[in-house]
Amino acid sequence: MKSVIPVELPQQSYDIAIASGGLEQLGNWLIGHGSQPLKLGKKILLVSSPPIFKHYGTQAITSLEQAGFTVAQCILPAGERYKTPASLQKIYDVALENRLERSSTILALGGGVIGDMAGFAAATWLRGINFVQVPTTLLAMVDASIGGKTGVNHPHGKNLIGAFHQPKLVLIDPQTLKTLPAREFRAGMAEVIKYGIIWDAELFEKLEQSQRLDQLRYVSDDLLQEILTRSCQAKAHVVSKDEKESGLRAILNYGHTIGHAVESETKYKIVNHGEAVAIGMVAAGQIAVALDMWEQASSDRQLALLEKTGLPTKLPGGLDIEAIAASLLTDKKVKDGRVRFILPTQIGTVTITDEVPADVIRQVLHAMQQT
Amino acid sequence: MKSVIPVELPQQSYDIAIASGGLEQLGNWLIGHGSQPLKLGKKILLVSSPPIFKHYGTQAITSLEQAGFTVAQCILPAGERYKTPASLQKIYDVALENRLERSSTILALGGGVIGDMAGFAAATWLRGINFVQVPTTLLAMVDASIGGKTGVNHPHGKNLIGAFHQPKLVLIDPQTLKTLPAREFRAGMAEVIKYGIIWDAELFEKLEQSQRLDQLRYVSDDLLQEILTRSCQAKAHVVSKDEKESGLRAILNYGHTIGHAVESETKYKIVNHGEAVAIGMVAAGQIAVALDMWEQASSDRQLALLEKTGLPTKLPGGLDIEAIAASLLTDKKVKDGRVRFILPTQIGTVTITDEVPADVIRQVLHAMQQT
Repeated sequence: MKSVIPVELPQQSYDIAIASGGLEQLGNWLIGHGSQPLKLGKKILLVSSPPIFKHYGTQAITSLEQAGFTVAQCILPAGERYKTPASLQKIYDVALENRLERSSTILALGGGVIGDMAGFAAATWLRGINFVQVPTTLLAMVDASIGGKTGVNHPHGKNLIGAFHQPKLVLIDPQTLKTLPAREFRAGMAEVIKYGIIWDAELFEKLEQSQRLDQLRYVSDDLLQEILTRSCQAKAHVVSKDEKESGLRAILNYGHTIGHAVESETKYKIVNHGEAVAIGMVAAGQIAVALDMWEQASSDRQLALLEKTGLPTKLPGGLDIEAIAASLLTDKKVKDGRVRFILPTQIGTVTITDEVPADVIRQVLHAMQQT
Repeated sequence: MKSVIPVELPQQSYDIAIASGGLEQLGNWLIGHGSQPLKLGKKILLVSSPPIFKHYGTQAITSLEQAGFTVAQCILPAGERYKTPASLQKIYDVALENRLERSSTILALGGGVIGDMAGFAAATWLRGINFVQVPTTLLAMVDASIGGKTGVNHPHGKNLIGAFHQPKLVLIDPQTLKTLPAREFRAGMAEVIKYGIIWDAELFEKLEQSQRLDQLRYVSDDLLQEILTRSCQAKAHVVSKDEKESGLRAILNYGHTIGHAVESETKYKIVNHGEAVAIGMVAAGQIAVALDMWEQASSDRQLALLEKTGLPTKLPGGLDIEAIAASLLTDKKVKDGRVRFILPTQIGTVTITDEVPADVIRQVLHAMQQT
């Protein structure tokens, strides 16, 4: 199975290819796979993390070398806490050792953290060289690898240092999901369900039809291809309409307003990003219902789908509602002291508003406390 | 006196304003000075170096505050050896402390090093915020501040880490040149003479008409305004035709091929950048004459003008010609092992070639040794 989704941007367009077994053909994909040639130089710097490189490194490098590329590698510890200027410096050092040129390519093989760092290195080495994304987590496949956001964390804040830098190709091999831990699979599914709510009612319905969604092995190959294709289409459509995040792109933050506050208040230790988004989507849904913008029945369907996926739908225990409310006001999405919410009006459609009364937020959060 | 030069780019256009006394009006310039409003946010982070900030800091900040801006400052040590990721981190730290937002502005007040670092911080803070250049050296005014190149050095190589990030405004106040050391003034004049050769024969002739050019005080206000305006026009024209340096922009490297090799072989300690470019222009001119591309008389005029400006026209003593030849081959501008030269064909016109025989280069360099 194979889908190719074009991402049309004013300055540079590129493809997202979803191809089972694509990693074995990585070298050919980079040459251009018969369609339009990618015109990458001969040198590739592969950036990956130890577990991913252990599983897929040899396969990737073999395929690249067979296609005539020279491959250097930089293996960085995985995890958000390593997404730092220090890790970035390691990529630069390998780039220098291997004399990467303006025509050379940095290739990210891994999850979102690897993609963000490798992409930022590509954005800033010699003022910008080629970049290719080969995401290996569901979250990176359907979200982080598309849209050109790259960067590292400042010691005191996430994603403060970065650049927009579009890849030349995103190659998604669904087979790499087989080694993904189940909890990370579910975290990615939270973003998939998000696309169902904000953009694609048909995707939402297809997910509803599946018996179980809490582990990859319950998901048929056909449904997985559909999940990846439709999610990437949704994200590609939104980012191509709004490359630099000035308008439409905001809808991608559905579930993220309260999600970020929950992540931040639990110090990124209790829930992962996808789980926080799941909680945030439940909250946004119930706010929309409270404001008479969304039907209770739709909110219930969202809740049921998240539960079937094994995602949390209640706030983590012991969380202070007032601390969440305060944290909302320091969120990046706050404008003039008003919290901006993305709220559903139907399954498949959302609206943006900063008119949510604080007491409605509190009421919804109280109802979401663990009993 | 005042000139405004528009720089037209596909994504974003901006003005270079050359205005005597402009620094006193800095705040008004940033509001938009009556013409099109610049739409900058309220917060400005001013980046400068100690000597420049001592001379002009108060004036700049007062004017900005009077125009309603809130100003934070980051004063960094001046000099190429401080153009590092560590200095960059200091700008990020101040940006975080002062909660710079996407609508905020980083303003560089200083020479090329300050502009490069501040520009790169603006390119990468929150994936890109507003940037304003207020260059205070002649070199930064006519070269570094225009064109959007920003970056820092890697410990083992200059300008390896960077981004293209266009300013919203370049404000040049010629009066700030009064505190510029004479040697730095002459270094800037090397780039001015370069524009005469590659682009603007009239500028070249006007320079020839001036009795002395080795110190600012011998240059009339009219001529200075003309020098700045014509140089900025030349650079603005070239970079707007070729924003990302894929073609025409190469002509700006006239004198830089051998210039870089001289700088690098003398470990950046004997000659400064402008002096190295002066030496490189003499060499390129004599190569062009040797290849029958340029008249001896024109090469002599170039030599006379450089001498009148007090710039070096011979190689620094004790330099190994073979080392220079070897260094040329590791220059960034080398393509497929051939050295690319920008060579004059008339005063005001150059051509690009990689067909210069190695023995011609050696011959010219030998003739340029100190006797």
